[in-house]
Amino acid sequence: MTRVAVDALGGDSAPGEVILGALDAAAEGVEIVLYGPAGLDTQGLPLVETTQVIDMADKPAESVRAKPDSSLVAAVRGVADGAADAVVSAGNTGAMLAAGLLHLRRLPGVMRPAIAVPIPTRRGPSVLIDAGANADNRPEHLHQFAHMGAVFGEELLDVANPVVRILSIGEEEEKGNHLAIEAHRLLREDSRLNFGGNAESRDLLRGAADVVVTDGFTGNIALKLLEGTIRELLDALRDELTATAYGKLGGLLIRPAARRLRARFDPDTYGGAYLLGLRGLAVVAHGNSGRTAIANAIRLAARGADHRLVERLSERLPERVRV
Amino acid sequence: MTRVAVDALGGDSAPGEVILGALDAAAEGVEIVLYGPAGLDTQGLPLVETTQVIDMADKPAESVRAKPDSSLVAAVRGVADGAADAVVSAGNTGAMLAAGLLHLRRLPGVMRPAIAVPIPTRRGPSVLIDAGANADNRPEHLHQFAHMGAVFGEELLDVANPVVRILSIGEEEEKGNHLAIEAHRLLREDSRLNFGGNAESRDLLRGAADVVVTDGFTGNIALKLLEGTIRELLDALRDELTATAYGKLGGLLIRPAARRLRARFDPDTYGGAYLLGLRGLAVVAHGNSGRTAIANAIRLAARGADHRLVERLSERLPERVRV
Repeated sequence: MTRVAVDALGGDSAPGEVILGALDAAAEGVEIVLYGPAGLDTQGLPLVETTQVIDMADKPAESVRAKPDSSLVAAVRGVADGAADAVVSAGNTGAMLAAGLLHLRRLPGVMRPAIAVPIPTRRGPSVLIDAGANADNRPEHLHQFAHMGAVFGEELLDVANPVVRILSIGEEEEKGNHLAIEAHRLLREDSRLNFGGNAESRDLLRGAADVVVTDGFTGNIALKLLEGTIRELLDALRDELTATAYGKLGGLLIRPAARRLRARFDPDTYGGAYLLGLRGLAVVAHGNSGRTAIANAIRLAARGADHRLVERLSERLPERVRV
Repeated sequence: MTRVAVDALGGDSAPGEVILGALDAAAEGVEIVLYGPAGLDTQGLPLVETTQVIDMADKPAESVRAKPDSSLVAAVRGVADGAADAVVSAGNTGAMLAAGLLHLRRLPGVMRPAIAVPIPTRRGPSVLIDAGANADNRPEHLHQFAHMGAVFGEELLDVANPVVRILSIGEEEEKGNHLAIEAHRLLREDSRLNFGGNAESRDLLRGAADVVVTDGFTGNIALKLLEGTIRELLDALRDELTATAYGKLGGLLIRPAARRLRARFDPDTYGGAYLLGLRGLAVVAHGNSGRTAIANAIRLAARGADHRLVERLSERLPERVRV
């Protein structure tokens, strides 16, 4: 049975919603180990007691060293020690990355870990990588991200030979900043990739590619913009509907359609993102994750573990990424 | 009367929709001069005959030099020569920038022109600058963009002392790539700006700031993602509604609400973006602009001319941007 270490204190709604989400995943057969303070009401789930907490405002690297017995760090160590197959936290993403680098360490040959996040598109999920593990990247980092994303696409999206594209400001190869243009050149010359050229951000939700590669700054801006725009638009729709009697009646009738729309686009449906490039599987969930998002993040982690994602990356990455 | 030079051959729907949009603006009192080929049916609008065409695939700088009598270049020259107060094209944005640099030239002290685009937010329009005039920027460019955006906010959005923020991946000053962090430092130390720190992309549509400053690559990715997401979501809503009978009936009832939503978020409502930093006023409209978008872009150009935007920038920028 797949064992997932869960940081009970990670996120805005912790520990309540985290425990509820963990219970949902446990009911489906995922073996959960919670990491949190003594006395926490885990509703029967096993608890590894921890004494410290990393919060969202803590500086990642410092807090991970200063708080070795925090729920987040201890949960990551759970994977390093073999007590769990994967770890999930809705806490400080930077701290997860720092804890992963310290306790799980990088896979051989990996220059920079990256956040791979599934994006809902019209054609099914795409992977956006890097969605924010890095602030500044070099072209060779993007080249590795392309390979990591391709492995992700093959293993978890069941896409044979996934199409990889670079996020840029025009489809032509000469369009982009220096980084995108140089990365384009590296990917184009790598016959091991099914490279489809540049993708424009306006096509992201249409399913421009199976794997969309970008630097962590641009990827994080893109991901948060996508989420913010979807939320704002769905909220605005609700406001417009409640503004008139006809709208209210119509709103009742379209409720199932609106719910399907929300389910299709809501980031919570996907729940979390993988930190790829480490010698252990780590999933970061949104800071504002509720029960559903936490359960989905745990499912994502379990799925990655079942597909032996880290082993697949480790088998295939070293030979693929030597550039 | 404000005179606007309009490139009749710019954009996917040219010349038909361009002429219709120009007629709409002319009916409101804007004096239009169309630039296009002899024999074009302008429905009575004055025409300056041109013999060449720049298309979307043309390389900007080359095409502007190779096709001096293209409708786009001739329309820009119309402003340089004083025949018009502003120019509008839905054609090749890069060519507009190149033509602007060649024939209008930069305002004294301006290092890089930038595209300033109004973004619809919950609190009214914000300005995003640079939305794509540049591929690579330095911190001092962003510093100038902040001042250009502030002048735009004061003159065209009627905001006294507009709040300026930098688009980044966290609100804390240490969050961001090297460029954003350095630009943050420059803006923070400039007492002439009402600097509000970093803004996250998820807050863009909520109205995070009056002026959102970023480099042209990130800004272009953000703008196109915003537009693509809005379009995709509104399309998906329509698809969901037509999937069931209840949905269809509900869809009829909510049609006015959906229309208000579209009007509020549709990029066409704003119509175009200013190229700021030149000695003449240039507005670039979307390549896929229809009649409404063209008319709005012409209104935007006329409004900028009426507010003497270029003069205001020229009066205030040189003293403000010396850093």
